[in-house]
Formats: sequence, structure tokens, C-alpha cells
Amino acid sequence: MAVPIILIVALIAGIISIVLALYFRTLVMKEDPGNERMVEVAGYIEKGAKKYIKVQYKILGIFVGAFFFVIFFLLPSPLETSERLAVFFNWEQALAYVIGSVGSMLAGYLGLYVGVKANSRAAQGCTIGTKEGFDIAFFGGSVMGLAVVGVALIGVSIIYWIFGSPLVVLGFSFGASSIALFMKCGGGIYTKTADVGADLVGKAEYDLPEDDPRNPATIADNVGDNVGDIAGMGSDLFDSYVASIVASMILAAALSLIEAPLGNVAISENLRATLVIAPVVLCGVGLIASLIGIFYIKLKGSSDPGKALNSGTYFSTIIFAGLSALFTLFLTIGQDAAGTVLLWRVWLALILGLFSGIIIGFTSDYYTRDDRKPTRNIAHAAKEGHAVVILSGFSYGLLSVVPPAIGIIVAMAVSYLLGGVFGVSMAAVGMLAIVGTIVSNDAYGPIVDNSRAIAEQGELGEDVIRTADLLDSAGNTAKAITKGFAIGAANLTVLALLFSYTEEAGITATGIDLLNVNVLIGAFIGVVVPALFSALLIRSVQRNAAKMVDEIRRQFEENPKILTGEEAADFGKTIDIATKGSLRELVVPSLISILIPLAVGIFFGVAALGAFLAGAILSGFVFAVMMSNAGGAWDNAKKWIEDGNLGGKGTEVHKASITGDTVGDPFKDTAGPSINTLLVVMSLTASIFMGLFLLLGADGLLAALAI
Amino acid sequence: MAVPIILIVALIAGIISIVLALYFRTLVMKEDPGNERMVEVAGYIEKGAKKYIKVQYKILGIFVGAFFFVIFFLLPSPLETSERLAVFFNWEQALAYVIGSVGSMLAGYLGLYVGVKANSRAAQGCTIGTKEGFDIAFFGGSVMGLAVVGVALIGVSIIYWIFGSPLVVLGFSFGASSIALFMKCGGGIYTKTADVGADLVGKAEYDLPEDDPRNPATIADNVGDNVGDIAGMGSDLFDSYVASIVASMILAAALSLIEAPLGNVAISENLRATLVIAPVVLCGVGLIASLIGIFYIKLKGSSDPGKALNSGTYFSTIIFAGLSALFTLFLTIGQDAAGTVLLWRVWLALILGLFSGIIIGFTSDYYTRDDRKPTRNIAHAAKEGHAVVILSGFSYGLLSVVPPAIGIIVAMAVSYLLGGVFGVSMAAVGMLAIVGTIVSNDAYGPIVDNSRAIAEQGELGEDVIRTADLLDSAGNTAKAITKGFAIGAANLTVLALLFSYTEEAGITATGIDLLNVNVLIGAFIGVVVPALFSALLIRSVQRNAAKMVDEIRRQFEENPKILTGEEAADFGKTIDIATKGSLRELVVPSLISILIPLAVGIFFGVAALGAFLAGAILSGFVFAVMMSNAGGAWDNAKKWIEDGNLGGKGTEVHKASITGDTVGDPFKDTAGPSINTLLVVMSLTASIFMGLFLLLGADGLLAALAI
Repeated sequence: MAVPIILIVALIAGIISIVLALYFRTLVMKEDPGNERMVEVAGYIEKGAKKYIKVQYKILGIFVGAFFFVIFFLLPSPLETSERLAVFFNWEQALAYVIGSVGSMLAGYLGLYVGVKANSRAAQGCTIGTKEGFDIAFFGGSVMGLAVVGVALIGVSIIYWIFGSPLVVLGFSFGASSIALFMKCGGGIYTKTADVGADLVGKAEYDLPEDDPRNPATIADNVGDNVGDIAGMGSDLFDSYVASIVASMILAAALSLIEAPLGNVAISENLRATLVIAPVVLCGVGLIASLIGIFYIKLKGSSDPGKALNSGTYFSTIIFAGLSALFTLFLTIGQDAAGTVLLWRVWLALILGLFSGIIIGFTSDYYTRDDRKPTRNIAHAAKEGHAVVILSGFSYGLLSVVPPAIGIIVAMAVSYLLGGVFGVSMAAVGMLAIVGTIVSNDAYGPIVDNSRAIAEQGELGEDVIRTADLLDSAGNTAKAITKGFAIGAANLTVLALLFSYTEEAGITATGIDLLNVNVLIGAFIGVVVPALFSALLIRSVQRNAAKMVDEIRRQFEENPKILTGEEAADFGKTIDIATKGSLRELVVPSLISILIPLAVGIFFGVAALGAFLAGAILSGFVFAVMMSNAGGAWDNAKKWIEDGNLGGKGTEVHKASITGDTVGDPFKDTAGPSINTLLVVMSLTASIFMGLFLLLGADGLLAALAI
Repeated sequence: MAVPIILIVALIAGIISIVLALYFRTLVMKEDPGNERMVEVAGYIEKGAKKYIKVQYKILGIFVGAFFFVIFFLLPSPLETSERLAVFFNWEQALAYVIGSVGSMLAGYLGLYVGVKANSRAAQGCTIGTKEGFDIAFFGGSVMGLAVVGVALIGVSIIYWIFGSPLVVLGFSFGASSIALFMKCGGGIYTKTADVGADLVGKAEYDLPEDDPRNPATIADNVGDNVGDIAGMGSDLFDSYVASIVASMILAAALSLIEAPLGNVAISENLRATLVIAPVVLCGVGLIASLIGIFYIKLKGSSDPGKALNSGTYFSTIIFAGLSALFTLFLTIGQDAAGTVLLWRVWLALILGLFSGIIIGFTSDYYTRDDRKPTRNIAHAAKEGHAVVILSGFSYGLLSVVPPAIGIIVAMAVSYLLGGVFGVSMAAVGMLAIVGTIVSNDAYGPIVDNSRAIAEQGELGEDVIRTADLLDSAGNTAKAITKGFAIGAANLTVLALLFSYTEEAGITATGIDLLNVNVLIGAFIGVVVPALFSALLIRSVQRNAAKMVDEIRRQFEENPKILTGEEAADFGKTIDIATKGSLRELVVPSLISILIPLAVGIFFGVAALGAFLAGAILSGFVFAVMMSNAGGAWDNAKKWIEDGNLGGKGTEVHKASITGDTVGDPFKDTAGPSINTLLVVMSLTASIFMGLFLLLGADGLLAALAI
């Protein structure tokens, strides 16, 4: 199967993206990093972040090395060349796996590095004006967005060009996702260990304000914003992005007939060659649309930062709709009538996916905005005490599952109508096409959050802090939208992966029959796993935060001069606790994400594993949305009260709202968003170990025993 | 198909059970109701409970009447007699439905009536000694247990005798379950409205102790224990009980071959006649075992009440194992070798179900006992404040899902191995066989809880209160076990209903294929429904409790003499709020439980509805276990602190633990246990409207549109 030359669009877009990322980095670096105190604080944050990354990457290096050998020696090669021992020595996927891992780590590092550098510079920019601060922060965030997308597209297109098989690209995707899981869970535990620890002692016991430099956990908290929110969210969307492309490629390569209610289309070799690269090419187009969106945001950014970010997203969306239509026209060249119609139907699915992603993002915004009913009601519930604010937020979180569920269901149903399971996978690709803009907007958030902290610590005065606050609140809105978006995209992606998995397993004809008890057991285990996974992550944060609390108390008690501001707190110790704790605590959750699907596949067979994935996808969706939105709403309810409503700071109402926020912290920043990555990793594990399962017997070892 | 005469065992057991219930009622009634103040308080409680029941039953009457006509006119008759218009005028199921509803209401009324009478008498009994108090409370509780099981068995056996079709019995089951849903949700909202309201103002703002007569919500709280815990839990287990029997009967009537990994067995007409009545007969045997267990508890009850209750459960289990083997021997008479072997395999599945039910009950006991690690850790987490106690309880709640999930999976797998899907349904029957003992133990709990309150208000002195406390703590343990047990039993029952549903729908051969997008959408909706349902119930409690809080504050403010004890609080008003609110609030959740499965069946077809049920069953299980166990653990952590640990009452630690308990209240007593009933009602709705779905097209209206 010849690879059409148009694939080069993706490669070129990827390269442009990396070049721009490096250019933006230079732009950020040449800005003024601010006064001495700011440089000092930024230096602490940078040191802390680098320390975390260093230890994290060392462990990841070992993990990646070990997995390289597992894939290499244990799994059958997906390329069935008859000249060699076909079954083992799977160097192709093993290599692609390493490239995916290293690419993910590089993109994460670059984004994090520039993010840390942009902090103090954006704060200093705020002394000149809103526009300057915004530009620096936004360029800093864009580096993450561009690096993620660029690395992904370059990796996917080159690997496919060399090996000509989507199954090798699957190795790349697995590499990207396994790193994402570590970055997301580790970062999530890190950031909340520091945040909860800082709040519980600093705010609650000693009445210190947020980001007070006397609080020993302040720097760790700032580091956490960077490692959790920049690197973590970036790698999360990176892995969904690659996975959605791979799922579509695998389906295009495997299907001989696209079965869709709107009409079946037989796939000729010619059409197949185009369909396989279509997701990559269209993502390249999406990247170009993202770049245009990024420049548009820069242009509009001066007056209202929040509106600028959103309008950039809309603008990218529109540009993408137009550009992708143009490129679909290119793709139809040389196709027969049936193929041409199919490509246009696929294009519609793509656009549908994109729009529903944005709608899902905005519903999660509704549930977490402080000028909307849910968050307001939660704030009012705080008047009746700690328990009622929890019940109110928890129930709103559960309610907020319904609108995005409808969004996903409609996107799935209509894209299926248009293009069968391939249509569904292309809707996922569409949802993620402008991820460059989305990640840029999102990474902007933690940068301005840190800028505010640095402006506070660098004593830049009330006016500057107010400017930084303005930028920060725009970041929070962007963050809420991204979270909803990330959940929706991950969910549609894993559904696409489920279809590609079953195609790979050869069970599309027999199906995944829930009336088969094996399959039902698989689904049961799948539904329980996200609950177990969330529990473990919440407990990790709780355990680690307890250590942090002890350390902060110890410092205040042993050295009272810290509280008076005469001596500096020992930031190294708290960073140490957050770093070591987060890495130790992510061992069990990551093992679960790989070992449970392996066990289900080996013992219950591939159909049960498919049901396992479906169960995990659906229940994971409920938990992810509930926890993200409840957490976001509690956070904003607290902020709204802190703005002077219902009595404002220091009242009993405020205290109750802090309880909500603290419960919400691990919900929204650790467990909730990690579930996305969990689902992708589990789906990819199922796909990549397929050869092993089929070797051991498609019905699983237990079926073999029960003969 | 002739009905074997051995069915009479079930009828006789049912009649004995009702006679004994009435006898126990007499025993309770002739006891001394205590001093004037006690009679007064008990009178208030009785009046409140009767008021609630009167309003509730009036509404239910209208509902049942309306549904009678829906079934009668809209649904095709399940008995295909060619002499008449076969499609409509389904008087058989409509009649059975009314009998099931009225039976459930009668059993609930009898249990509640005696429960209310037993309160003050058990309190008075405590003035004589532990044994006397225990006996009265236990006899009072047994009335509920015996009435439930008796009505169920008499109803099922007579209806089957007359109509000879399990599908008519399905109407009976639907009646029982729809009432159970109202009783469970309504009772759950009622009890927590009163409890949370009483705690938030009385305890938190005015520092009144629990059950203080000055608190205007005290009586409503006591009424709530009766309507929520006695009538609610009784009807919950009643509906699972009947549903498990019906599911097995339908499977036995429909299957032509039992497909099980241990060997397939073709079903002859002779064997079928036996298999259809086997679940009823074996439940009759279970009832006999329960009666023996109840007398055993009475015998052992004097020294350690908690041990006595548990040992009664064990004893019933053993008796049931022996007796059921004996009756299985009877059932094998006249069967060929294959039939005999099958019956014994089914017996094994039955026993397996029973044992796993007890194991599941005990694991939920582990997660909620104050002398075990989870609850202890939650109590210690209270040292770090309100938020940490919430996070700790929530994550333990999620963790506690794993052991019972393993229990259900093992029970399902092994019983399937033994007897295919029929084996699974018989495991559910086995799990519920000794429900007479279980409900008796459970209904004992709220009686002694009320006794303690009455002893306090009747000023019976420290010694008597200590005795009542001893009885009360035994009740709490029984309650925790019953809850786990009820969830496990409901879960296995709805799985059995899923199988009988698919058998009825005729989709056993085609299966419920998750790769079909229609089906996947069904599963998606199913997974979301328990989350939505829980959210609505929690919000109901919250809204209603807020009204209660306002009313209590108003009374204290307008009449300060209430607080000094000079004038009595206005109990009528608070009872009114709890009654009206709970009935108003249950409208939306009940509509959901019937309308959503209807909509899924009509629009997406019967396979999608099957997936909907499976999705709801699995996610419902996770939510039910999580909420019940988290709530129980928070409650016991608070009680443990109130016993003087970690500083005891009045400390900040205690306050944090109260927050946990208050959050847990609607979790464990409203939303969590209502999910069981939701699942049963949704499954039965799917089954009972099957004729309608098939009439409209098995693939649903949407499939018809998309041609």
C-alpha cells in the first residue's frame, strides 16, 4: 500500500509547529524576569520543577527500558513477514514505543521549562500593562501546545512512512500514553499534596493568605501548578490526540467495508490508502488552524483576556472547518463516486466531533462558573455549614454528568450514522484537531497563576496584582473549558480505540455479547476500576498532604522567625516531600492500569476485555466529569465568597467553602483528570498485548480450564 | 403444564409466617407501654408515622389505579389465548400488579404498626433487663420480616397456581417493586430530612443532645427511623425477594436447554414443571429455616444481643442448607438422571448464593465497624479537619466496592458454571432465601433506636439507657450487614432479571452486542442513570432539610420557652414538612425509574434496553456500595469519637466527624439503598413492557427512522 504524498502536510505542519515553539521560547526568554526577589522566587520554582522532572524522568527511563524489552521479546510482531521468526522479536513496535515515550517526555520538558521561565516574566510584564503580561504568558503556554502537537504529528507521520502499518504507530501511541499517565498522576498528586498541605496549615491554622512566602509549602504549590497543570494536562491531551489518530488509522487499515446506516461503502485499496492517512493529514490541517488561532488570540489579547482566549478557540474552529473541507477535496482526487461521498461524510463526522467537543467544554464551564446557578447555590449552601456545601457540590457534580453524556451520545450516534465506527473515530480526531489552541490556552492558566504569586512575593504593588488577577481569572475559565473538553475527547477516543481493538481482535463479527457471563464479568471489573483508581489517588494525596502538614507545622514550631518573616522557610524540604511522595504513590495506580487489563485479557479472553474497556470507559466518564466539575464548582464558590459575597473572608461561610475547595482539590486536579489517561492507557494496553492474548487463546485461560 | 403439588409447601410456609407475625404482634401489644411520658412520646411517633402512611398510601392508591389501566389497556396479554383479542385487555398482569402492590402496602403497614408499638414497650422492657427489652424489640422486628416473606410467598404461589404462567407473577413482582420504590425513596428522604434538620440546628447551633425532647424535629426523626428503616428496608428486600423468584421462574419456563460449562441439559416438560416451581418451593423452605432462626435468636438473645442476631443468621443458613437438600431430594422424584443431576447443581448454586450474600454482608460490616481500620482511620482523619474526614470516608467508600464486587463476580461465575443463567438466578434466590431472618434482624434496629430515645425522654435513668444503648449498638451492626446483603442480593437479582428479560425478548441468540452503537448508547445511558438518581435524592434531602432547619430556628426564636423546656415544641409542623416534602420530592426519581427504560426500549430497541439495564446494574452497584459504606463508616467514626476517643464530644475533631456523618446521612439512608430498588424497578419495567417494545419494533423507533 503506497503512502500518498499528501501525508507530508502533517509532517510539515509538525515541523513548523516545533520551530514556532522554539521561536516563542526565545521571545519569552528575552523578556525582563523582574526584580531580585522575583528572580529568586522564580528560581526556587524552576529548581523545584527541574528536580521533580529529573527524578521522574529517571524512573520513567527505567520503566520505558523495561517495557521496551517486554514489547520486544514477549509480543508478536504486528508485521507478518514470513522471512523471520514471525512471532517474536517485535522491534518495530518496541522502537516506536521508545520514540513515543521520549517524544512525550521532550514535549513535556520543553513546555514545563518555558512555562517556568514565563512566570516571572509575565509578572514583570504586568507592571507595563495587561497586554504585555498576557502576551508573555500566552506565548509561554503556546510552547507547550505547539510542542505537544508538533512532536505527535512528526512522530506519527514518520513512523507510518517508514513502516506503513498503523499497528507500529500503536507502539508510539502506547509510549506517549504510558508517559502521560505518570505525568498526569504524578503531577496531580504533587500539586495537591502541596496545595492541600499549604491550605490546611497555612490558611486554616495560621491565617496566612494564599501564596504567602512565609508558608514553607508555597514554592512547592507553585511548582505543582507547573508539573500538574502544564506538563500533566499537556501530556493528557497529547495522548488522546495520538490515540485518536491511531484508532482511526487502524480502523481504516482493517475494515473491508464501512457499515453505516446512511449506506455501506466497500473499501478499495485506493480508498484505503487515503483513509489511513486522512486522520494524520487532517490533524496537520488542524494544527495549521491552531497556529492561526494562536496568532489571532495574540492580536485580540489586549482588552479582555478571557474573551480573547475563547474567541481564539472559535476562530480556530472556523478556520479548521474551512481548511479541512479544502483538504478533503484534495483527498477525494482519484477516488470513485462512492469513495468521494464517504470522504465527505467523514468530513462531516470530523466537524461534528469538533463542535460537540466545544459544546461539552462549555457545559462544564456552566457548572463551574461563579455567575451561574450551580456554583452560586453551592456558595449559598455554605451558609448551612461544611456538610451541606459538600452535599450540594457532590450532587451538582453528579448532575453535571448528564449534559456531556448527551453530547458524547449524540456525537457518537450521528458520526456512526455518517461513517460507521470509522466515523466515530474521526469524530474523535475532529474533537482533538485544534488541540494546539486548546493546550496553549490551558497552559496559559498555571503560568498566570504563578505570575500572580510571584507578583505578590516580589511586592509589585496592588495595581500589578490586580492586573495579574485579571489574567488569572481568564486562565481559570480556560482551564474549566479544557477540562470538559479533555474528558469529552478522551472519551470519544477510547470509544474509537474500543472499535479498533475489536477490529484487531477479529471479534467484530461475533461481537461483545453482554449475555455471555465471561463478558459480563469483564464489564463488571471495568466499571469498578475507575472507582478503585480514584480511591487510590485520593488516598495518595491525603497521605502525602498529611506528611506535608507535619513538615509545615514542624518548621513553624521549630523556627518561629519564619512566621515573622525574619527567616526564610525551608522550601527544599517541602519540595522533597511532594516530589518523593508523588512518585512513590503513583506506582500502584499505574500498575493497575496495565496489569488489570492484562489479567482480564489473559483469563477471560478478548471479548471480555472489550467489555472491560467499555465498562471502564462509561463509568470512568461518570467519575471524571463528576469529580472535575464538583471540584471546579467548589473552588469557584470559595473564590466568589472570598470576593466579599455572603460575608466574605474569615466568616463561618467562608470556612465551609474552604472545606468544599479542599475536598475538591484532589477530585478536580488529581483523580478526575487522571481517569482520562487511565482509560487511554488501558485501551492501548489491550490493543498492544492483543498478540499475546490471541496466542493464549481468544476465550481466555479460564474458558480453557472449564472445558 | 400441571403445577406440582409440592408448591403447597410455599403456600403453607407463607400462611404460617403470617399467623406467627400476627401472634408476635399480640405478644408485643400485651407488654407494658411504660410511663405516661413514654406513652405520650410513643403516641406522637405513632401519629406521625400513621399520618405519613395515610398520605403516602393515598398517593400510591392513585398511582396503582392509573398503572392498572396502563397495564390493562396498553400492554399485550402474556397469555396467548386465541379465543379473544390476544393483544390487549391484559387483565391477568393488571390484577397481579394490584395484588402485588396491595400486598406490599399491607406488609409495610403491619410491620410499621407493630414497630411503632414495640418502641416504648421495648424501652419499658429495658427497665426489667436486657433480655426483656431485646425480646420485645426482636419480636416487633420479626413481624416485619415475617409479614414481608409471608405475603410474598402466598402471592406468588397462588397467582402461579391460578394462571400457570410466570409472566403473570411478573405483574405481582412489578406491583411489589413499584411500591417499594416509593417506600424506599420517600422513607429515605423523610428520615434524613428530619435527621439532618435536627442535627444542623439542634446539635450544631444549640448544642442539644441527640433525641432531646426540646428539639422540634425529634419526633419527626423518630418517625423517620420507622418509615425509612422499617418500612423502607422491608419493602426493599420484599421486592428483591419476589423479583429473584420471578426471574428464575421465567427462565425455567422459557429455556429449552440449560447451557452451562459443566454440561448442557435439555429441559423436558416434566423437568420444566419442577424447575419453574423450584424457586418458590425452596423459598418456602428458606422461610421455615428463617422461622427456626428467629426462635433460635430468641433463645440465645439474653446475653449478647449482637452475637445472638448474627448467630441466628448463621443458624438459619445451616438449617436452610440441610432442609433445602432434603427438598431438592423430593424435587428429583420422577426426574431422569440428567434432570436429577441438574437439580443438585442448582441446589449448589443456591447454597453458593446464600454464602456469598453473607460474606458480602460481613465485608460491608468490616468497612463500617468502629473497631476496624477503615472507620478508625476516618476518625483519625477528623483530626485534620472537615475536608480530610470527607476525603477519607469517600475514598474508603470507593475502596469498599472491590470486595463485594469480587463476591458477586465469583457467585455469578460459579453459579453459571453449575447451571447457566438459571444457575445465576437460583444463586440470587439462595441469597434471599433466609430474608425472613435478615429483615427481622434489620427491623429490630430502628425499634431499639427509638426505644433509646423514648427511654431518654421518659427519664428512665442512666441504667436503663445503658441497656437500651447496648441493644441499639447490636442493631447498628445488624443494619450494616443487612445493607451489604441487600445490595448484593439486589444486584444478583437484577442480573437474573437481565437474563430473564433477554429470554423474554428473544434476543438470547443474537445477544446484546456492545459493538452495536445502539446498544453502546443504551449502556451509556444506563451507567449515567444511577448517578443522576443519586444526585436527585441527595438534593431532595438537602432542600427538604433546609426547610426543616428554617422551621426549627423559627420555633426556637419565636418561642424561647421551648429551649428552657417550659413549653413543648410544635412537633406537628416538623412532621408536616418531612411528610409533604418527602412525597413531593419522590415524584421525579420515580418517574425516571419508569420513563427512562421505557424511552430507551421504544427508541433504541430491546437489545439497547438490555445494555441499559446492564450498565445501570453495574454502575448502580458501585454507587450503592460506595454511598452505603462511606455513610456507615462516617456515622460510626463519629460515634466512636463521641464515646470519648480523640478528645470526645465538643472538640473540633468531633465537629469534623459530625460533618462526615451529615454528608453520610443521605448517602447511606436515602440515595445508596434506593438504588437497589431503582435497579429492580427498571428491570421489571423493561420486562413488563416487553410486549409494547416488540409491537413497536425490536430494534427501536430510531432504527426504523434511519433506514
